[in-house]
Amino acid sequence: MEKQLTDYREYEELYERLAAYARSDYYPFHMPAHKRAGLTFTNPYQIDITEIEGFDNLYHAQDILLNAQQRLAQIFQSKRSWFLINGSTGGILSAIGALVKRGDHVLIARNCHKSVYHAIKLFQLKADYVYPELMECGIQGNIKPDAVEEALKHQAQTRLVVITSPTYDGIVSDIREIAEIAHKYGANVMVDEAHGAHLALSTYFPDSALSQGADLVVHSLHKTLPGFTQTAALHIVNERVDCGKLEETLRIFQSSSPSYLLMASIDRCVGLLERSGKQLFETYQKRLLRFYEAAQKLKHLHVLTEKDYKTYAAWTVDHGKILISTRGTRINGVKLYDLLLERYRLQMELYSAEYVLAMTSIMDTQEGFDRLFWALLEIDRELDNTEEMLEDNRTEQLLQKVYAPREKVMEISDTDDYNVEETRIENSIGKVCAEYIYLYPPGIPMIVPGEVMTQELADILESCRKLGLQVQGTRDKQYKKILTVAYNE
Amino acid sequence: MEKQLTDYREYEELYERLAAYARSDYYPFHMPAHKRAGLTFTNPYQIDITEIEGFDNLYHAQDILLNAQQRLAQIFQSKRSWFLINGSTGGILSAIGALVKRGDHVLIARNCHKSVYHAIKLFQLKADYVYPELMECGIQGNIKPDAVEEALKHQAQTRLVVITSPTYDGIVSDIREIAEIAHKYGANVMVDEAHGAHLALSTYFPDSALSQGADLVVHSLHKTLPGFTQTAALHIVNERVDCGKLEETLRIFQSSSPSYLLMASIDRCVGLLERSGKQLFETYQKRLLRFYEAAQKLKHLHVLTEKDYKTYAAWTVDHGKILISTRGTRINGVKLYDLLLERYRLQMELYSAEYVLAMTSIMDTQEGFDRLFWALLEIDRELDNTEEMLEDNRTEQLLQKVYAPREKVMEISDTDDYNVEETRIENSIGKVCAEYIYLYPPGIPMIVPGEVMTQELADILESCRKLGLQVQGTRDKQYKKILTVAYNE
Repeated sequence: MEKQLTDYREYEELYERLAAYARSDYYPFHMPAHKRAGLTFTNPYQIDITEIEGFDNLYHAQDILLNAQQRLAQIFQSKRSWFLINGSTGGILSAIGALVKRGDHVLIARNCHKSVYHAIKLFQLKADYVYPELMECGIQGNIKPDAVEEALKHQAQTRLVVITSPTYDGIVSDIREIAEIAHKYGANVMVDEAHGAHLALSTYFPDSALSQGADLVVHSLHKTLPGFTQTAALHIVNERVDCGKLEETLRIFQSSSPSYLLMASIDRCVGLLERSGKQLFETYQKRLLRFYEAAQKLKHLHVLTEKDYKTYAAWTVDHGKILISTRGTRINGVKLYDLLLERYRLQMELYSAEYVLAMTSIMDTQEGFDRLFWALLEIDRELDNTEEMLEDNRTEQLLQKVYAPREKVMEISDTDDYNVEETRIENSIGKVCAEYIYLYPPGIPMIVPGEVMTQELADILESCRKLGLQVQGTRDKQYKKILTVAYNE
Repeated sequence: MEKQLTDYREYEELYERLAAYARSDYYPFHMPAHKRAGLTFTNPYQIDITEIEGFDNLYHAQDILLNAQQRLAQIFQSKRSWFLINGSTGGILSAIGALVKRGDHVLIARNCHKSVYHAIKLFQLKADYVYPELMECGIQGNIKPDAVEEALKHQAQTRLVVITSPTYDGIVSDIREIAEIAHKYGANVMVDEAHGAHLALSTYFPDSALSQGADLVVHSLHKTLPGFTQTAALHIVNERVDCGKLEETLRIFQSSSPSYLLMASIDRCVGLLERSGKQLFETYQKRLLRFYEAAQKLKHLHVLTEKDYKTYAAWTVDHGKILISTRGTRINGVKLYDLLLERYRLQMELYSAEYVLAMTSIMDTQEGFDRLFWALLEIDRELDNTEEMLEDNRTEQLLQKVYAPREKVMEISDTDDYNVEETRIENSIGKVCAEYIYLYPPGIPMIVPGEVMTQELADILESCRKLGLQVQGTRDKQYKKILTVAYNE
């Protein structure tokens, strides 16, 4: 943001700054996918109502909200779908709450969203983890069906397998095989497809978990489809989920005054897909194909495709997320992100040590894709002018260790039974951590409560900070101290 | 709604019906308190962003969202305040999660919101209840400090007292004395002041719990102040609450993609109060006083004031909620509600057996108050024409029993340890209930999981249905069966 906006201090500072940003020419390669333009909406105060006559009740839907949710289900060819107004977060807590009993064993892809960990704690679950492989540029890979089978063999009481697919970076796991394995071992499969609501809507993208045997699928509707931020959807596709239980948990984790604005935006999103979805996705596909082709002209920067992920097939990568690698250049992800923002007014979704991520959707314009391409080409040409390599961009080894398995001493919820103490990181080695530490984005934990702090992890935290990556999760905002379990008290 | 709207079936049915309603001349004596008119907002798609540069992060607020929340705190003279985007629901779950440890003893006003019961279950709390007295027209009264002291004496391990004040009907409890007692016994006090965010902003209303010694207060910002539906706020006023723990639970129960639309509407609400709050509340007070004075002309219908609640002083009633009693007339609450809606296009907030409730706010117009008054006067005159009394409007005895104490066999969360079975209500007498049954609105449970079903309650359910009151909560939407604990399995 420009200085004058940052300095702006007045009544309604937030609203005014948002309105000023709306008038600016920043182009959004970030969520939400409606991209702020193109769609209209009436004055929200005018239609922001509560459950009055004629407008049904989200939690006892019998009329207009039942119809609206049935139309949502039809678009996604699910057996049944629900509107979510507390984001995928609310959906994930509700889904896990409906699929497990307190104390159950679950198998969790380690790169799951925080809300999955929160559910583990709330429902006192016994969690085992499967770890994604690390790929090119420190990108978290997919979850291997073999690893799932291995884990389920080891813990036969597992009731639920939770997979995030696609990941924030667009990596898709083989849900069909994972679901087959899980069902063989008597476990249900929930897929956090928050980043992949668009998959089911075009054959250009990898298959959605909805058609691959997942029992329950959660979609964000703002990440890749044009719903308002904080809207999401929950789908079931078979008879394995107890709908009564699910509706009970949905009522627990979502406001009893659900926003009709958020619901109306879901309705508009569904309406748009019904009317124009096919054509919008065709145009979108053409634009993406053209962009990826043009991007081959880049000599230093590199736009990743499935070919870069040696062992990966086309169906495992969602090309809607454009990953631009800085590996082997003299700039890192942070620098590229800043250049695109400051010089080209292109706001990316995120940076990592060695790449930036541009989120695209059916709502992007050709102009947007063009601006991104020409900006990358110009930066790429500047990178001709030097042989010098960035010293600290060889971060693969670091990132390889960021998400390494940690030693678990107790379940996440068991840490509640102990007092905790603030410990300086250098003194915390060997102690049991009592909080999460993660890089944001994407917010995948490097360590979770109940796991043992190591010197290696302390070093990693230091390195991440030096690289400009955002370490989050600890109560101490200086990140010098962490909470550890105090056994002696 | 008119027939033609109900029959409308098209793309974006929900959005279109909302827009049609916005164009209608229905006057809203219901939530949200912004009353749909008077305030403007830019095209929401334009400002619906995510956590990009310059717009801070709600869960790690350091810049514009920190300022915005500090301004909120200033308005309410709290020590610290938080924006809530999953309604008071999210705030209540987070607050209780921060104030208790799993398995703690808590003392709950029985007329608390469902979310309080959900927290009891999630955190496996051991709950004792204090019951409000029943007042005029079946209205739930306040919570007596004596009853709180009695209960705390009985269970010295109680860690938290939860009170709803004001109630949906505007009845305020003596939080100062309750807080003094609770603190004496070592318990914290959380007040669900969802229906009373306006109390702190004008001396015309009873004192807010914020100035009465409550440790943590939850406000809805859409119920009585002009925020969007689903916006709310959480305040602390002293050092008794662990902010670190609270921020952790807020991250659990609220979307990790919080809506900037909802946040911007909180910001606009705060801005409006800063600029014009004093004047708006003065005008509002004048309008209310004039309405209550004029309403004395009614001969049959009766607008309730604190004088009707024998033992109640002026400070215990929030006059922003207008309660119109039908007692002693030949119409009941349902009929009055329907008359006001169909003949006068006045949408009330709720009906009960013997009254209807009109919610008012600073955003109401003089025209709105006038329309309500003249409609009531006209209906009142028609009631002259007959001596006939409504047969079934003597419901006090019924309602006296609706919220009678029930026998508790196990804690709410303990019912999870048993299988449950669907039992026809007539066969459920003596069995342990495994779900909630409540009248909606207001949603106060008549029985909670772990309590024993009785013949009396079965009869009450039948009577409520006959009166046209909405019985909800059971999975069986016909309300013929309830879930009960199956001991034998």
